[in-house]
Amino acid sequence: MKLATVLHDEETIPVLVNKDGQTFLPLKAASEKRSGEGDRIPETVLGIIQGGESVNGYIQELLSWATEDGDGQTMWLPLKEAKLLAPIPRPLKNVFCVGKNYADHAIEMGGPEDIPEHIMVFTKPPTAVIADREEIPVHRGITEQLDYEGELAIIIGKTGKAIPKTEALDYVYGYTIVNDVTARDLQKRHKQFFIGKSLDGTCPMGPWIVTADEVGDAGNLNIRTTVNGEVRQDSNTKHFIFSIEQIIEDLSKGMTLEPGDIIATGTPAGVGKGFNPPKFLKPGDTIEIEVEKIGALRNTISE
Amino acid sequence: MKLATVLHDEETIPVLVNKDGQTFLPLKAASEKRSGEGDRIPETVLGIIQGGESVNGYIQELLSWATEDGDGQTMWLPLKEAKLLAPIPRPLKNVFCVGKNYADHAIEMGGPEDIPEHIMVFTKPPTAVIADREEIPVHRGITEQLDYEGELAIIIGKTGKAIPKTEALDYVYGYTIVNDVTARDLQKRHKQFFIGKSLDGTCPMGPWIVTADEVGDAGNLNIRTTVNGEVRQDSNTKHFIFSIEQIIEDLSKGMTLEPGDIIATGTPAGVGKGFNPPKFLKPGDTIEIEVEKIGALRNTISE
Repeated sequence: MKLATVLHDEETIPVLVNKDGQTFLPLKAASEKRSGEGDRIPETVLGIIQGGESVNGYIQELLSWATEDGDGQTMWLPLKEAKLLAPIPRPLKNVFCVGKNYADHAIEMGGPEDIPEHIMVFTKPPTAVIADREEIPVHRGITEQLDYEGELAIIIGKTGKAIPKTEALDYVYGYTIVNDVTARDLQKRHKQFFIGKSLDGTCPMGPWIVTADEVGDAGNLNIRTTVNGEVRQDSNTKHFIFSIEQIIEDLSKGMTLEPGDIIATGTPAGVGKGFNPPKFLKPGDTIEIEVEKIGALRNTISE
Repeated sequence: MKLATVLHDEETIPVLVNKDGQTFLPLKAASEKRSGEGDRIPETVLGIIQGGESVNGYIQELLSWATEDGDGQTMWLPLKEAKLLAPIPRPLKNVFCVGKNYADHAIEMGGPEDIPEHIMVFTKPPTAVIADREEIPVHRGITEQLDYEGELAIIIGKTGKAIPKTEALDYVYGYTIVNDVTARDLQKRHKQFFIGKSLDGTCPMGPWIVTADEVGDAGNLNIRTTVNGEVRQDSNTKHFIFSIEQIIEDLSKGMTLEPGDIIATGTPAGVGKGFNPPKFLKPGDTIEIEVEKIGALRNTISE
């Protein structure tokens, strides 16, 4: 399933998006129509994730009904008529981000000595999250080196701690795309990455969450970033230094993971800073990140 | 005012604590008793902070009533009869932490070259927050170098961005104490500090929030940490490298600060790692952090 948050008729609602990404099923309305049970659907995508198997099993049923039943089929609306928001517009904590998880990116940021032996994690605040198609502020006067980082992001589905690699995928609800937009000058100046990673609007996320069952092997997905149509990053998640399973094992060793936690998995080579001379983002630039089986996340830098 | 969250009669409620820290005023019950307006009090301390001047002005009135009026004076209950929770038990985002904000601590962690020229910020997740007197898990098998860091923490009172130093204090609601418990081996191994700072229970916070008006100049407060009664850290916030005003200006340059945001301001010299040989925390150790005008935060390491 593709789960999204949209603004429709002045309401922010959780919806399913169909396979071709053209129409959406408002879940509460569909549940109401089918059986008068609108209130079985939580108010938010986060609530659906937190709802676990009972809620998600019910949504699967609803989807079957809306696919197969005549009445159900009438419930789909054109996605054009709604505004996509980030699938989790306000995460309950900072977004966890794995740094340097592709060897070629570690090398472009410094050299082979930058390939990490151990997972490196920093965070981005909830205030940085914006949706697909929303503008990324240029942050004039604050940074002159705004850069993109296309990343697959894991959405955690249930509470867990000390999760072994072998069970890690049981804790994954699904996946989305994150652009870990980074102010390279701030990242360098302030040493710990947070300040360079925390500016408002520098965590575009979406366009939706695709559930784990639909993605299959997330450790083998093509990932490609273009800026104004020019391919900058072109890789595959099979080149991860630390696999999804390893990331979950390492992060959860002493820290409880919770439903709705978001973990960005790192970016491949081809960021603006990696070019000579560097290709930092300019007002009006459009960055599009495509991840196989997930979709495309597109944002433009504000003037 | 001293604002706390307590568990009392199986309910988690916001309260005021009296000057000597012995009794508390349950705010909803007091408001109900005074004028039948229990619902003027938000459900949580966070809600009170978010409520801004109207809510906080009303609470000031309630406090006067409960101090001066016969009926009001009967509303205070012994703090012993309640369990103190962290003042904000579940922050809405990670706790922001300033690294190396006292020169003597920067030197003990490395040398004079470690004194930062620019503010350094990392975060701790909401899952790490525990209350005064709660146990800090020893995290056996995960870390062998658990360490304390006594810190004054700022509580932000209103939304702001690009806040100039000269106006920064207008955005401060109050102050509390944070023990930025750190797994030194993980901090070193994973380079970015997050993993070493993120373990469950490694962000003791409290015992309460003291409002800014009551604290006065927070840039001149004695701060002292003892372990099992032995003084380890003994300093004053006047030794900050980056003042409270500077921290707020720097953090808010491109990132919106919000009511309830928590900023730990860094720790002075005397952490366990700074001794030769190091004095890391062991099961049963009790750490007490006293900050002048705020109070004392005490926690014991689990067996």
